[in-house]
Amino acid sequence: MNKIESFPVEPWSVTESSYSRDVLQRNASIFFLGNGYLGFRGGLEEDGPERGSSTHGTFINGFYESSPQVYGEAAFGFPDKKQAMLNLPDPTGINIYLDDEVFNPEAGELLEYTRSLKLDEGLLVRDMYWQSDKGRRVRLKITRCISSVRQHLAVISCRITGLEGVEKFRIVSTCSTVSESHESNKSDPRTGAGFMHSPLNCECRDLDRDRAVILQRTANSGLVFSEVVSNAHCSELSLAGSKDFGDRIEFTYETPDAVDPQQAEISFDKFICFYSSIEEEESRLADAAVETVDEAEKVGAALIIEEHRQHIREFWETSDIEIDGEMQQGIRFNLFSIYQSAGRDGLRNIAAKGLSGEGYEGHYFWDTEIYVLPFFTYTSPEIAGKLLEYRYSILEQARGRARVMSEKGALFPWRTINGEEASAYFPAGTAQYHINADIAYGIKKYVKASGDMKFLADCGLEILIETARFWISIGHFCDDTGSFRIDCVTGPDEYTAIVNNNYFTNIMVKQNLEYAADSVRRIKEDFPDVYQQVAEALCFSEEESLLWLKAAAAVYLPYDEKLCVHAQDDTFLQKEAWDFSNPDMNMHPLLLHLHPLVIYRYQILKQPDVVLANFLMNDSFSRIQKIRDYNYYNPITTGDSSLAPCIQSIMAAELGRVEDAYSYFMKTARMDLDDINSNVSDGVHIAAMGGTWLSLIYGFAGLRDSEGQLSFCPRLPAAWNCLNFKLNHKGMVLRIKMGRDRTEYSLSGYNSSLKISHWGQPVTVRSGNPIETSTRPELKAVIFDLDGVITDTSEYHYLAWQRLADEEGFIFSRDINERLRGISRLASLDIILDASSVRLAGSKRFELGERKNEYYKELLKQITPESLLPGIPEFMKVLKEKRIKTALASASRNAPEVIDRLGITDDFDLVMDAAAVEKGKPDPEIFVSAAEKLGLYPEQCIGIEDAAAGVEAIRAGGMFSVGIGSAAAEATWTVDGTEDLNFNDILAAFNARDL
Amino acid sequence: MNKIESFPVEPWSVTESSYSRDVLQRNASIFFLGNGYLGFRGGLEEDGPERGSSTHGTFINGFYESSPQVYGEAAFGFPDKKQAMLNLPDPTGINIYLDDEVFNPEAGELLEYTRSLKLDEGLLVRDMYWQSDKGRRVRLKITRCISSVRQHLAVISCRITGLEGVEKFRIVSTCSTVSESHESNKSDPRTGAGFMHSPLNCECRDLDRDRAVILQRTANSGLVFSEVVSNAHCSELSLAGSKDFGDRIEFTYETPDAVDPQQAEISFDKFICFYSSIEEEESRLADAAVETVDEAEKVGAALIIEEHRQHIREFWETSDIEIDGEMQQGIRFNLFSIYQSAGRDGLRNIAAKGLSGEGYEGHYFWDTEIYVLPFFTYTSPEIAGKLLEYRYSILEQARGRARVMSEKGALFPWRTINGEEASAYFPAGTAQYHINADIAYGIKKYVKASGDMKFLADCGLEILIETARFWISIGHFCDDTGSFRIDCVTGPDEYTAIVNNNYFTNIMVKQNLEYAADSVRRIKEDFPDVYQQVAEALCFSEEESLLWLKAAAAVYLPYDEKLCVHAQDDTFLQKEAWDFSNPDMNMHPLLLHLHPLVIYRYQILKQPDVVLANFLMNDSFSRIQKIRDYNYYNPITTGDSSLAPCIQSIMAAELGRVEDAYSYFMKTARMDLDDINSNVSDGVHIAAMGGTWLSLIYGFAGLRDSEGQLSFCPRLPAAWNCLNFKLNHKGMVLRIKMGRDRTEYSLSGYNSSLKISHWGQPVTVRSGNPIETSTRPELKAVIFDLDGVITDTSEYHYLAWQRLADEEGFIFSRDINERLRGISRLASLDIILDASSVRLAGSKRFELGERKNEYYKELLKQITPESLLPGIPEFMKVLKEKRIKTALASASRNAPEVIDRLGITDDFDLVMDAAAVEKGKPDPEIFVSAAEKLGLYPEQCIGIEDAAAGVEAIRAGGMFSVGIGSAAAEATWTVDGTEDLNFNDILAAFNARDL
Repeated sequence: MNKIESFPVEPWSVTESSYSRDVLQRNASIFFLGNGYLGFRGGLEEDGPERGSSTHGTFINGFYESSPQVYGEAAFGFPDKKQAMLNLPDPTGINIYLDDEVFNPEAGELLEYTRSLKLDEGLLVRDMYWQSDKGRRVRLKITRCISSVRQHLAVISCRITGLEGVEKFRIVSTCSTVSESHESNKSDPRTGAGFMHSPLNCECRDLDRDRAVILQRTANSGLVFSEVVSNAHCSELSLAGSKDFGDRIEFTYETPDAVDPQQAEISFDKFICFYSSIEEEESRLADAAVETVDEAEKVGAALIIEEHRQHIREFWETSDIEIDGEMQQGIRFNLFSIYQSAGRDGLRNIAAKGLSGEGYEGHYFWDTEIYVLPFFTYTSPEIAGKLLEYRYSILEQARGRARVMSEKGALFPWRTINGEEASAYFPAGTAQYHINADIAYGIKKYVKASGDMKFLADCGLEILIETARFWISIGHFCDDTGSFRIDCVTGPDEYTAIVNNNYFTNIMVKQNLEYAADSVRRIKEDFPDVYQQVAEALCFSEEESLLWLKAAAAVYLPYDEKLCVHAQDDTFLQKEAWDFSNPDMNMHPLLLHLHPLVIYRYQILKQPDVVLANFLMNDSFSRIQKIRDYNYYNPITTGDSSLAPCIQSIMAAELGRVEDAYSYFMKTARMDLDDINSNVSDGVHIAAMGGTWLSLIYGFAGLRDSEGQLSFCPRLPAAWNCLNFKLNHKGMVLRIKMGRDRTEYSLSGYNSSLKISHWGQPVTVRSGNPIETSTRPELKAVIFDLDGVITDTSEYHYLAWQRLADEEGFIFSRDINERLRGISRLASLDIILDASSVRLAGSKRFELGERKNEYYKELLKQITPESLLPGIPEFMKVLKEKRIKTALASASRNAPEVIDRLGITDDFDLVMDAAAVEKGKPDPEIFVSAAEKLGLYPEQCIGIEDAAAGVEAIRAGGMFSVGIGSAAAEATWTVDGTEDLNFNDILAAFNARDL
Repeated sequence: MNKIESFPVEPWSVTESSYSRDVLQRNASIFFLGNGYLGFRGGLEEDGPERGSSTHGTFINGFYESSPQVYGEAAFGFPDKKQAMLNLPDPTGINIYLDDEVFNPEAGELLEYTRSLKLDEGLLVRDMYWQSDKGRRVRLKITRCISSVRQHLAVISCRITGLEGVEKFRIVSTCSTVSESHESNKSDPRTGAGFMHSPLNCECRDLDRDRAVILQRTANSGLVFSEVVSNAHCSELSLAGSKDFGDRIEFTYETPDAVDPQQAEISFDKFICFYSSIEEEESRLADAAVETVDEAEKVGAALIIEEHRQHIREFWETSDIEIDGEMQQGIRFNLFSIYQSAGRDGLRNIAAKGLSGEGYEGHYFWDTEIYVLPFFTYTSPEIAGKLLEYRYSILEQARGRARVMSEKGALFPWRTINGEEASAYFPAGTAQYHINADIAYGIKKYVKASGDMKFLADCGLEILIETARFWISIGHFCDDTGSFRIDCVTGPDEYTAIVNNNYFTNIMVKQNLEYAADSVRRIKEDFPDVYQQVAEALCFSEEESLLWLKAAAAVYLPYDEKLCVHAQDDTFLQKEAWDFSNPDMNMHPLLLHLHPLVIYRYQILKQPDVVLANFLMNDSFSRIQKIRDYNYYNPITTGDSSLAPCIQSIMAAELGRVEDAYSYFMKTARMDLDDINSNVSDGVHIAAMGGTWLSLIYGFAGLRDSEGQLSFCPRLPAAWNCLNFKLNHKGMVLRIKMGRDRTEYSLSGYNSSLKISHWGQPVTVRSGNPIETSTRPELKAVIFDLDGVITDTSEYHYLAWQRLADEEGFIFSRDINERLRGISRLASLDIILDASSVRLAGSKRFELGERKNEYYKELLKQITPESLLPGIPEFMKVLKEKRIKTALASASRNAPEVIDRLGITDDFDLVMDAAAVEKGKPDPEIFVSAAEKLGLYPEQCIGIEDAAAGVEAIRAGGMFSVGIGSAAAEATWTVDGTEDLNFNDILAAFNARDL
């Protein structure tokens, strides 16, 4: 599909301002409406060339049909049934007749046209002024509403005015009776599936003047739904007849002879109601639908729409995020779409495409817990609880699946509607066992944020016990090392499959096991009766949880000592590097152009895997580790998954790369509005929409919520003036307003208080007492290099090298010496040897290095406090006065001796141990770790260096750099010499910097 | 299916001696006939309840229909078409009427009944004497022949005699016109597939009195076949009519009124002929078939059958294997079935089920090159060449497949008929890239054995270049180690999938690359024009072959230093051990009871993988390595693949475990006759049949053919008196008669000679001059332990330990000392420490061991030639006289000093270096390696030991053991002391032993 014009940027709506057949499919997804239970795609009401194709969609969340799953070569345990959310008969049809001409946007002329999704009101409104081929005219406004107050009900309300040249005005309201599920493009695994068979059998249809009542049952899954379509009209219209054509029912209304259409203001409302056997007794289905419609007609369309509007306003009250920037529309569209799609009754979940289309067959994935749940947890915790309740409702099927897989406990399905595994390609399906740990993670986060211990007792505990059991069953303790290993799994990155010890899986298993043990303990204490009951029902004994903790402690977490990064799995880092220069190998998404075996063979990622673990298990990683993992994996992450950019954005933000973070964020926030992946026609990307919230709150606002405590590090993109939002925490609502300069925290309610942290500083917010603080991090520490910054030992180095060179007959000079600045001892020796074209054995090299060091150490004895470089004592004094901490970050193992002789050892809050550093400058480790040891973020520190490698290290660590002398010219702030270090100037520059 | 009665053991036939509906399916496979081109399953001629079901099968090898391949979740590069060998319309129908009663073996009474596959004649003969319900009688003999001389022709010849009570005798000959391909059990991946559509469209049918001519085209693959069915009858019958019923044509013959059936000897012959567009122009198809039948009718059925019989006799002349034992029938049935199934025209190959059934959809696999080709290479090399020519015929498709897989060169399909990949489960399909190297291996073996350089030039070279290119493309040189690695592959063991550096694949790739480079060089020398042409067509430059050799030299071959075994792949040995005690996990075949992800996660094999490499790349492994690999992998090999037992048998034989070898052989040799896997009804197991030949020739006869040189090591099972067979080597026929005592080698032709080896001894066989030698290995060497055998240093050990114990205050005694016999120094120390309940740090342990050794070495200075144990000088003298080699295999690093002091250093042909031994006794390494260094097989050596661990080592190495003293009681021959070593007694025992 070609790229088509984007929607104009508006704060509270998404508007199509002209009609085009080309965008009908795409916009049917964008203009979908839903209430978590019922959903309509944005198909047009009038008959057109596209009706019956995939533009129209009518869904009950979780209402599915099954059909045999066919395999070329099947094997034991492959799911034998497909499930697909059924596209129900389309009830929305309305045709408008002006005498013998029917309204059709492709005929005549559209004098005015807008179709607009009103995000603030939750309505889809189409306004048109149309002239027919024969010159007749009509003004038409169609408002579509799926009620968020009455989940079974939808209303389509039409207002017809401005008729010209019309003798007889007619409306034909239609209602299809056959499923719209269609055959789709089978070569793209991301689209939906159709059926070979006719999925619905009508059990009952009753047509009574203005109203049809229909009851249909699926052919295979045996689910039943009832549907009522009822037409309400004003006195300007009268019923001319209603008729059942088999596959469609039509109700015809026309202006009575007494009415002159030219004078008429015609209103016509269509009430649509669905019930299903998922939530209602079969025998009650028809009656319930009729009662709902009776009640709705009594209330009237206008009030039905108004109460819905009010509900949506309340939604925004708690859920809106204001950024005052061009991404505003995308953010709101995304949050609104998630809200429209999430099941709210514990019987259904949120599909990968929500209620917007048939893509991914309406299946529920890990997307819920990892990408969408945090939004609800912090804005509508009751919905988060219901989504997790759904998992509890399918626990029995998960137990059954574990049995099929020869395991104990429960294995949740990788993709499902009814709880049965529906993945037909196990290497990227069932093998993603991590779904179990993802659900446990979702439960943990939800319980910590909401404090909903009742959920933990009633539902969570069983899930946690059964998932923990599964891990013990599938993992094994290695005889040699005692480590707990899990083989033959697939992690989140679907461009690598069936590997041993996927890092992500293993660390998530660790938290699953630990949280299960912790929950058992807490429920036993707080709800002893519940504990007793569950333990008996599940034959649980506490020895089991001891084994969980043993396994958790022993979980093998692969790490590469040489690269200093976490290995994605046991063999990932041994695989061949990806060739980004070969155009044949770089058509995206790769999965549509390369065989899985090709993709699996290389170091190439579909989406973050270790880096996702860096985010989710944030506390388990040092800052330098996150930098290294990100630096290694991010360049080889294609982002072919819509789940990728939000995570990349969050980690880029955390590492201080705000521009990168913003560029990833844009891909997430407008993925669907701009149809970035050219597949919105299949439905919107719910997980990426959830990811938008994650990127905003965890990324730019820097929320971290380990163990339930909230902390923030605002890192606003340059394009934004604010980032305002609310978080619900244990029933309290914390309002956060982050401006470019100041951030305000305020708390709802009376007499409540909440301890949070802001850039690492504890803050207690009390209701009625907003707290304001600086948005940007304040300067808290200065981290010094030693040589050339504090003192100049370079002359001693020069003398030591010269002595060695003289003894060995090497060429040496001041020029050569200049090239040794900031370079390690053995690397310096190599430069000297190169200059003399000498090659030496390793042992001899080592010996020479040692000898030079001895000479150097002898020379160091000449150091006294007078050897401090000019300006340094004064500069350090100012820092002490300003209560700015200081640290020494020198690569030299002689540093402690040097500062001792300088007499300034006690002046430093921290002296880094050079021997404990894994990688020397220009690696950022020594600076980043120094900040971490001081309990600070790099953004709160300044690093001072005289060498290029040192400046590079400071910058790579996301720290403000001050350079001394010409070699350090790449620093953000430079001075010629130490005597020029002026605290106030530096502080001003620090405070004025771009983040 | 229940186990049903086996066939009685007969040397030259397989006979069913009563009719039973229960065995129709199974026996339809067993009684199949074929000539490599045309094949019939053994369905009955008469109509019965089973006609049209899978008992009947009519196949043209390689004639297939395609249909869409459906996937639950498809991905790029998955084959989009299924191929299946088509079950053609059944032409064999013959119904016999006795007045109003039709012959039916389930009605009336079968007074006599046999159906017999005549292996020596290549015919299926049914002899019956039947009485109808009303008492009428008939004697009926039906002979079925598919001509091996005229590949398009089959004849069914009926003789009817002994009619009683019959007024009118009638024969209705039928010929179906619709395909019999049927839907099969989709849950078992090993069965065939049916079609959803009607696979054949009739293009022409012509019915003329006795004869029908039919031309049909497949719906999707577009292949065409012609079929002529023609009935020839004696004067006792006349044509009563022929009629086309649409799905079936009937020809009715009856006795004329003038003939009294009671007196008649009726003959009725049915000629059946098929041609296909695979080998013939479409326009010629009908004419060719008519001409063939015209000619056949002219010759007459009797002569057609006789010339076929003669052909089969010639087949046996070169191909028979005589064993004079109960496995004889199975061996002949298997060889015959392979011969019947193998394509002979270069346009078709040999299907997994041959021409016996639709199992595995008639696909060709690696089975051909690895399991079946050796038989043809050594008995009918022209067929071997044609089978490889088929591979050349699909090279273009293989190139295309490599492109789809983003690789250079060519990738042969894992399973195919038409050359396109047809595997629908890539982890056990396309990922088995080793097929490429298997084909290269088959070419190499064929060319070396046949000397067919023309094939190498015309076909082989291109295949070798393109497969070598594929490996360079898919592998990569590791940055760190420079090793050449191949990731994401599946080896032969299908219970492990998608791993890195599968050992089998990598070592086979190595030979592929080396042989490709070698072939390029040879063809360039010997056929410079061909070389020039190929090099130009393939844009080949010699630098490529340098890269092949670089990669071959660098191929990474995983080895576990601790276990001293080759690792099946990078992570296999880290996986969890299989739990053989859990009944739920041990239902076989596992693939029908466990999900692939479960199976893949464990150390469990479907079939040999490393051990198959041990066999195929025999020269690359030391004897001890083969023992260790076999000992590690064989116990975890389920044998769930029919390809397993033959390989297990061969390696067991090589390692001297002849009983094990025989028990595996039985599973191979009678797999189908005894329906061991309960699935013969789908067709016979062609690869296992080829494996029968492999087990006999490579296993029990011990053939090895590295670089074309033949060597033998006969290891006859106790049940057999002989093993007689012939091998074709570069046009010469070598006849081998292995009796229990003597083996005779003779050579056909005039003035030719062949160098072979027998138990390692070079033998030159000249035509007309048979050579006889001992079947059993003769004694060639005696390998001595030192301590307690040559001299007794145990007293010195005792004294040294005692001194140490006294110094350290440990408990020590003669009793404790006894427990140290044959045990290493540090292990001895541990026993002493245990006795005193002392625990020591590693360094202290080491120091104590060293100290004891110093004391011991001081004591050793007391050794003189007088310290030789009694009898030893005399025994060694006899050995020298008899020219028996001697070696010293002592674990002591002091051994050289000891024998020096004893003055016998020069008496040994070999003194093993204890420091070079990876594993001490009871591991067999030191003995096995000693034999190998002497250029001998363990079976040619005796090992002498005084310690239990030493005896265990000798036995584990497959060597004859002589034990001295009570601790060595487990030895095969024992004496009380060295003075009792009597060479003649030992030699007699050695010669009389069971192998």
